[in-house]
Amino acid sequence: MPRPVLLIHGGAGDITDARVAGKFKGIKEALRAAWHHLEEQEEVPKSDKDCALDAVEAAVRSMELDEAFNAGYGACLNTDQQVEMEASLMEGRNLRAGCVTLLQDVMHPITVARRLMEKQRHVFIGGSAAQQLALSTGSERLRPGALITDSAKQALHEFKQQQAAGIDTTYARTELDDARTDPKGDTVGAVAMDRHGHIVVGTSTGGITGKWPGRIGDTPLLGCGTYADNTIGGVSTTGHGETIMRYNLAQRILAAIQHKGLSAQAAADQECQLMTKRIGGTGGAIVVDHIGGLGISFTSHRMAWGYVQDGIIHYGIDHNEMLQEPFTT
Amino acid sequence: MPRPVLLIHGGAGDITDARVAGKFKGIKEALRAAWHHLEEQEEVPKSDKDCALDAVEAAVRSMELDEAFNAGYGACLNTDQQVEMEASLMEGRNLRAGCVTLLQDVMHPITVARRLMEKQRHVFIGGSAAQQLALSTGSERLRPGALITDSAKQALHEFKQQQAAGIDTTYARTELDDARTDPKGDTVGAVAMDRHGHIVVGTSTGGITGKWPGRIGDTPLLGCGTYADNTIGGVSTTGHGETIMRYNLAQRILAAIQHKGLSAQAAADQECQLMTKRIGGTGGAIVVDHIGGLGISFTSHRMAWGYVQDGIIHYGIDHNEMLQEPFTT
Repeated sequence: MPRPVLLIHGGAGDITDARVAGKFKGIKEALRAAWHHLEEQEEVPKSDKDCALDAVEAAVRSMELDEAFNAGYGACLNTDQQVEMEASLMEGRNLRAGCVTLLQDVMHPITVARRLMEKQRHVFIGGSAAQQLALSTGSERLRPGALITDSAKQALHEFKQQQAAGIDTTYARTELDDARTDPKGDTVGAVAMDRHGHIVVGTSTGGITGKWPGRIGDTPLLGCGTYADNTIGGVSTTGHGETIMRYNLAQRILAAIQHKGLSAQAAADQECQLMTKRIGGTGGAIVVDHIGGLGISFTSHRMAWGYVQDGIIHYGIDHNEMLQEPFTT
Repeated sequence: MPRPVLLIHGGAGDITDARVAGKFKGIKEALRAAWHHLEEQEEVPKSDKDCALDAVEAAVRSMELDEAFNAGYGACLNTDQQVEMEASLMEGRNLRAGCVTLLQDVMHPITVARRLMEKQRHVFIGGSAAQQLALSTGSERLRPGALITDSAKQALHEFKQQQAAGIDTTYARTELDDARTDPKGDTVGAVAMDRHGHIVVGTSTGGITGKWPGRIGDTPLLGCGTYADNTIGGVSTTGHGETIMRYNLAQRILAAIQHKGLSAQAAADQECQLMTKRIGGTGGAIVVDHIGGLGISFTSHRMAWGYVQDGIIHYGIDHNEMLQEPFTT
């Protein structure tokens, strides 16, 4: 019987020292907001179906509300000064999923992804259709600009200054210029396994600052930003979306677990490193394998992460860092 | 030194007898329109870079022009009677890619995908931004409705009649009702390997008849509809997009080649069958592995395919069918 676990991340990239405290606060809040869904299952068995799903949705919603993360409120801006959000959610039992992209003016993309999944007609929708689904299924329409923070405006301003100064802001010619491949991607994600070994994964993002309108990243793509398969494991990724998409990072990690028998940690380490070596861009992943093993790995400078298991919150942001505190404080 | 090969498909699904001749004609025309790019490389070495890419683009463009296929002209209609197209293109040498979705009123989505790839800023764009890229890089804006054929209108009419009659048209509850899981998806795709072992893959589609506006399928998603990695192989898929996306069909086939040492054919057979067994929806794939081995497999009733190698066109549409004719007729 696996021990339930909730493992989350709050984005990989160049995270300045000034932002570390806010990341840690948000990670711990999200874990505390979501863990009870998995714990309740142990004490009062309710439907097997929804515990891991509820936990993932709750954790991601908590980070979507928190401007320390690039998802929901505080999402980054495209070159038109607009927020276009993406999210995906996947259940490992039956490979059901819901994915949304180019979504505007709603608070919780992860919940829109869940509602799409539960409709079972399509898996992925984008643009105004995603917003219409959101509004017709209970999301509130926010006033245009409601998700935009001063910090996001400042980041776009800096991006445009760099562009004007001729600094490569594309993060694209990564083979040529490794130093420029570590974008401030603060995508959020969660992987939960319940006591029955059921795995659910969700990921949500605003993309990258200064992206073109209409740009789609890895976050809503199954096998790139998100994947869950109870027979192998679950993965949520973060980092340079174009790189992660081209490498199929989530699915490559799962293949290394499935076919090479690697642990979640070894698979995540191997594939994140191979990705960056091959393409140049950086990223990270959180992994729970089918026997409950955990993997946390990143080739970016930092990645905020945390998990709850057995009454302890573990968390960190630098390489080889693991802090702890009791879940109940 | 691998022998160059160009392997293409013209869609998997319920293809009626009346449509077989048109499919064969279109497959052979596409092969004849595209093969010279690979052959020229043998006779008059030009840049290594573009032969496989040019061949894939030319083959897909030929099928986008042909109303026997669901891509470009003749693409299927969504519930709003509109064409929304998708395409992706990937190079196996460096994992570069370009992907577009929700693209309207341009003739050749595969060419838009190529131009995006060559810009190297983003990998995937959707909606009006994709159309703007197309128009600003040389595509002609077609009048609204220019891509719509009588056959596509008829298919939508039949879809709506089935819906009105309460017949399940979603292809979604596939676990429950296998007989309804074989949509008329006539997506097109091409996999080329040049004499240097460089692999390029492209895929283009109109999606599925009666889809919601804004629905995104597997075709533009790397690892689902398209993937190319010179060290493993290249795959283009076709069939029920939601199923293929949830299973990550292209990447699962490549993982079976990479990690289990399966041939292209064995890997394609295994993963198409596992996909349909696990999720219920049907689909097919064409595969060229890193040593030039070919795989052609489908769990749908039919899949139109063809390839050129050593002066012979091989083609088929039913299970266990292989027809041949000389390339030069």
